[in-house]
Amino acid sequence: MKNTQVPPAAKADRSTVRRHNLSLVLRVVHDEGEVTRAAVAARVGLTRAAVSSLVEQLLAGGFLVESGKTFSGQAGRPGTVLKVAGTGPAGLGIEINIDYVSVCVVDLAGTDRVRLTTHLDNRGAAPEEVLDRAARIAARTLDSAAEQELRPAGVRLAVPGLVSGGTVRQAPNLGWNGVAAEGMFAQALARLRPGARALPVGSDNEANSAALAELWFGGLDRARSFLYLTGETGVGGALVLDGELLRGAHGFAGEIGHVVVDPDGPECRCGARGCLEQYAGQAALLRNAGLEQGAAGAPAVTELERRARQGEPRAVAAIEEAGRRLGLVLSGAVNLFDPDAVVLGGSYRLLMPWLAPATHAELARRVVSGLWSADGGRLRASSSSGDAARGAAAQVVREVLADPVAYTEGQPG
Amino acid sequence: MKNTQVPPAAKADRSTVRRHNLSLVLRVVHDEGEVTRAAVAARVGLTRAAVSSLVEQLLAGGFLVESGKTFSGQAGRPGTVLKVAGTGPAGLGIEINIDYVSVCVVDLAGTDRVRLTTHLDNRGAAPEEVLDRAARIAARTLDSAAEQELRPAGVRLAVPGLVSGGTVRQAPNLGWNGVAAEGMFAQALARLRPGARALPVGSDNEANSAALAELWFGGLDRARSFLYLTGETGVGGALVLDGELLRGAHGFAGEIGHVVVDPDGPECRCGARGCLEQYAGQAALLRNAGLEQGAAGAPAVTELERRARQGEPRAVAAIEEAGRRLGLVLSGAVNLFDPDAVVLGGSYRLLMPWLAPATHAELARRVVSGLWSADGGRLRASSSSGDAARGAAAQVVREVLADPVAYTEGQPG
Repeated sequence: MKNTQVPPAAKADRSTVRRHNLSLVLRVVHDEGEVTRAAVAARVGLTRAAVSSLVEQLLAGGFLVESGKTFSGQAGRPGTVLKVAGTGPAGLGIEINIDYVSVCVVDLAGTDRVRLTTHLDNRGAAPEEVLDRAARIAARTLDSAAEQELRPAGVRLAVPGLVSGGTVRQAPNLGWNGVAAEGMFAQALARLRPGARALPVGSDNEANSAALAELWFGGLDRARSFLYLTGETGVGGALVLDGELLRGAHGFAGEIGHVVVDPDGPECRCGARGCLEQYAGQAALLRNAGLEQGAAGAPAVTELERRARQGEPRAVAAIEEAGRRLGLVLSGAVNLFDPDAVVLGGSYRLLMPWLAPATHAELARRVVSGLWSADGGRLRASSSSGDAARGAAAQVVREVLADPVAYTEGQPG
Repeated sequence: MKNTQVPPAAKADRSTVRRHNLSLVLRVVHDEGEVTRAAVAARVGLTRAAVSSLVEQLLAGGFLVESGKTFSGQAGRPGTVLKVAGTGPAGLGIEINIDYVSVCVVDLAGTDRVRLTTHLDNRGAAPEEVLDRAARIAARTLDSAAEQELRPAGVRLAVPGLVSGGTVRQAPNLGWNGVAAEGMFAQALARLRPGARALPVGSDNEANSAALAELWFGGLDRARSFLYLTGETGVGGALVLDGELLRGAHGFAGEIGHVVVDPDGPECRCGARGCLEQYAGQAALLRNAGLEQGAAGAPAVTELERRARQGEPRAVAAIEEAGRRLGLVLSGAVNLFDPDAVVLGGSYRLLMPWLAPATHAELARRVVSGLWSADGGRLRASSSSGDAARGAAAQVVREVLADPVAYTEGQPG
């Protein structure tokens, strides 16, 4: 992604300070939703004159709009209410998963404005082909975004694997090793839209992006420290601590799917044996439930849920067994990390009525602090309003909020 | 511990700023070891006159001394070299473990100045009795510290259990539940030294204190993000991330000893089954090695090491089996947390020649990033210069460094 770092303090001249203050004002309006210039000035500790000048620049740049409302405070004339723009600066997020690609454009407020999801099997295809498919879906999404006058500042790919330095080091379920996904995606998109301005492309682990979506859009009771699990073909994980993603020393933290359940268990695609994914991933769930061979993805999980709802013993037993294994590994993770909550996303959301009691029983039995013994309230399904694509798009928007001037400079006249 | 918080920015008046700057100057001298006023001024960005005034106050308060050396810089007259005082302000750390109590006084530089360790069995005794023993050892240590003109600012207890809000919530191997250890210790010490000024008492988990000792005193190659394990009767753990202890949402992070190895394994003192402690704690090690019943503590571990060094198969096999179980759990922890290094402390240090290969083999096989497959360099014994008592004492010293004025106010005329 583009460089959004402010130069070091020693070199802070007047334009650097103004650049910083533009971001400060923009973020206050973003966080407050609707707010007057006077309220912004009170929040940031600058004079009303200074704030007015910054607001003018942000209005001219298309970051803010006046909402049309006015607000009468205790003193002075009524102030016009500001909010972030619903057009212009935006983020493009692309989740590339095993059996679907989901592309999302969010605006400055983080609202999901365009969404295009295609279910397809990415397992047999070469990385180039998968990224080409993603670029085609992204190009169509960009067309819809343009109709809504949204101009993305950049792209963030969310991939189920270990991602660092622009490269997918390893994505076992995709069969990717050392794939330079950012560059390949950028080239594919440039071939499809040769006239368009090149968007900077970043990448992240899909569980990280999904956990950030949960943090930012997960609703009012959201926890500030939680463990997030995706439940797709793979079992991804992410740790959020005090509202910050914990990335680890090399960016590879959160790989809960490869925590060992049984050292002599079935071989995993990562090369080790008996990983959690072999017990609580979609393939294990569907196989243990007796769903026909080759059943996979969202339709198969929906079928599994239907059978469980009808009380079919094999379906219920398969989900409960996955829940028990999840609970064993999660109790260890909670003992290590002591989060406020554990959030289960992806297909686990659908299976919660049968999964959660089995998972919670192990947490209650094994978390040494005893904090999990009382009730299941800390174990919950992810909210319906966040996913990896939206999280990835919102990561791009956060970079715009952190340095709106860089965005302006990146846009054509 | 005493309140070392600076008031919020809105109330920052001149004395608050000076208080902050005193700490800044003191910490620069602490970090640099030996340094002139001019070099301090360059580091903190204040004028030489301002720094000189702050240094005078710190000299008068006994925090700094002039080393006697001078240093000729590129300009101006030679400067006198400053260093932190080797007398006066100090920290008192007390590790209360299952089979020993270790008390340590460190000076402002963090140097271990007085140490008194007593091997005894704390298992049968009531918490009051154990804390009374600790207070007796502490009182003797304080007498030795006074002879060296060291005046501790406070006490930090390090206990093998879950500690929060001044209370040991649970210490399974001590049999403690909800023990108000800080208050009980303070009363016991006051009874022994009725005339002495009451020292503020704080408490922490012993693995946390030991990990901080490793971070601060572990030598030049110390990692900034690591997982620390104690290997005593219990198996304690702590996570350090970017040089900061990761405490978790409720202060209970790091409990690696209670990560499950086998859900149907032997009952653990925590109430669950098959915890790591039941496979890699001292009792399991000694039992599996065939050491006589009742063997425990440091002498028994020394005997185990002697047997392994002589190549006794049962001793070697017992250590290797513990190492393999450690490796299984550590591979999960590394997949979750992605640290730079794993540091094994306590009795594991002595057993590394047989333990480390078995542990490393599992890490190499199971860490999904592949970063642990090359060599065993990231798995290492803790340094000999840090332990929980020294870490706890140094935590007190850090509080003095953060607010020397609070220390001055706490001292008698």
